[in-house]
Amino acid sequence: MTAMIRLFYAPDTCSLASHIALEDAAADYSSVRIDFATDEQRKPEYLAINPKGRVPALVTGKGVLTETPAILAFIAQSFPQARLAPSDDPFCFAEVQAFNSYLCSTLHVAHSHRMRGSRWADDPAAIAAMQRKVPESVGACYDLIESKMLREPWVMGETYTICDPYLFTVAQWLEQDGVDPSRFPKVVAHRRRMSERPQVQKAIADELA
Amino acid sequence: MTAMIRLFYAPDTCSLASHIALEDAAADYSSVRIDFATDEQRKPEYLAINPKGRVPALVTGKGVLTETPAILAFIAQSFPQARLAPSDDPFCFAEVQAFNSYLCSTLHVAHSHRMRGSRWADDPAAIAAMQRKVPESVGACYDLIESKMLREPWVMGETYTICDPYLFTVAQWLEQDGVDPSRFPKVVAHRRRMSERPQVQKAIADELA
Repeated sequence: MTAMIRLFYAPDTCSLASHIALEDAAADYSSVRIDFATDEQRKPEYLAINPKGRVPALVTGKGVLTETPAILAFIAQSFPQARLAPSDDPFCFAEVQAFNSYLCSTLHVAHSHRMRGSRWADDPAAIAAMQRKVPESVGACYDLIESKMLREPWVMGETYTICDPYLFTVAQWLEQDGVDPSRFPKVVAHRRRMSERPQVQKAIADELA
Repeated sequence: MTAMIRLFYAPDTCSLASHIALEDAAADYSSVRIDFATDEQRKPEYLAINPKGRVPALVTGKGVLTETPAILAFIAQSFPQARLAPSDDPFCFAEVQAFNSYLCSTLHVAHSHRMRGSRWADDPAAIAAMQRKVPESVGACYDLIESKMLREPWVMGETYTICDPYLFTVAQWLEQDGVDPSRFPKVVAHRRRMSERPQVQKAIADELA
């Protein structure tokens, strides 16, 4: 099954998290770039794979998966030897899922109001008002992550998990979102720590190739 | 451990999904109502339990869990005899997580722009513009659910899972969000099917008691 895995991704999006996790898992996979500049994600060919018109999508031997927290859990459970999530304790596994769900449904959503405001309002003045609040709403997420959630050296503490590539990925957007990284030394140290991992470097290089 | 489970909930919120799942699991739990009218979710007592100031929060013998998709997965994995999620197949489990992640990060977020617009903009005109788009953005989510995601009779097909209480919960908001339910006969039939389950009736009655 593993040889059939294909990741549909776009550079500078949350799909990088799944890309890194595939490298962490030493999975046999291929990656397919979707060109947002030409709206490839909304063309019939891609909508046949992912009707949501978003990335990531992971094509597996059993079907297509979407949604980063679900894809990351799938990778962790499909490659247990990589130990990317605690599999024997429902509470610890749920803690991992809770962290990733927060990034997906709160932090990523706050970030999306900078470039994707038209999802939630049509009036250009309203979209501009959303953009103005992004530094505050995204910053509030990082306040919580910095003070309550990130245990160090990895998100869950001593053990690297599928939370780490996801935090690294969304933390790429700090500066663009107008959030001063110096307010969040633990998040920035985590970002640097992640950037030193060969698996991270390989995933990024693959996306930019 | 099970006797120590406490669910912090508020009526008419997404915490109903976790409440129903606890009934489905025949869990030994107690429920604690948080009064949004007096902003109890932002008081120090509750923030000590859940620093996010939101519901649901599930207090377990090992610690506190938040985020509906994570709590639902925890309930399914902690009470395997209730068979609320496919536990032996990473793909099938990820499909469940993907559905719940979509409800959390896309449908619930679209809905939240009706009453919680101040999370993403300060200007009253912008908040009003967000409210105007809710019927369209929430409706688009149900288009996808109706046409591509809901397999019938349950979300995943023949087998009831933790997707079902979550869809039932968010589908309570259809009419308030200005979405015409008659456009979505499968969703409405699912809502009716769920409402006939004793576990659902018990969870709702507990919240309104």
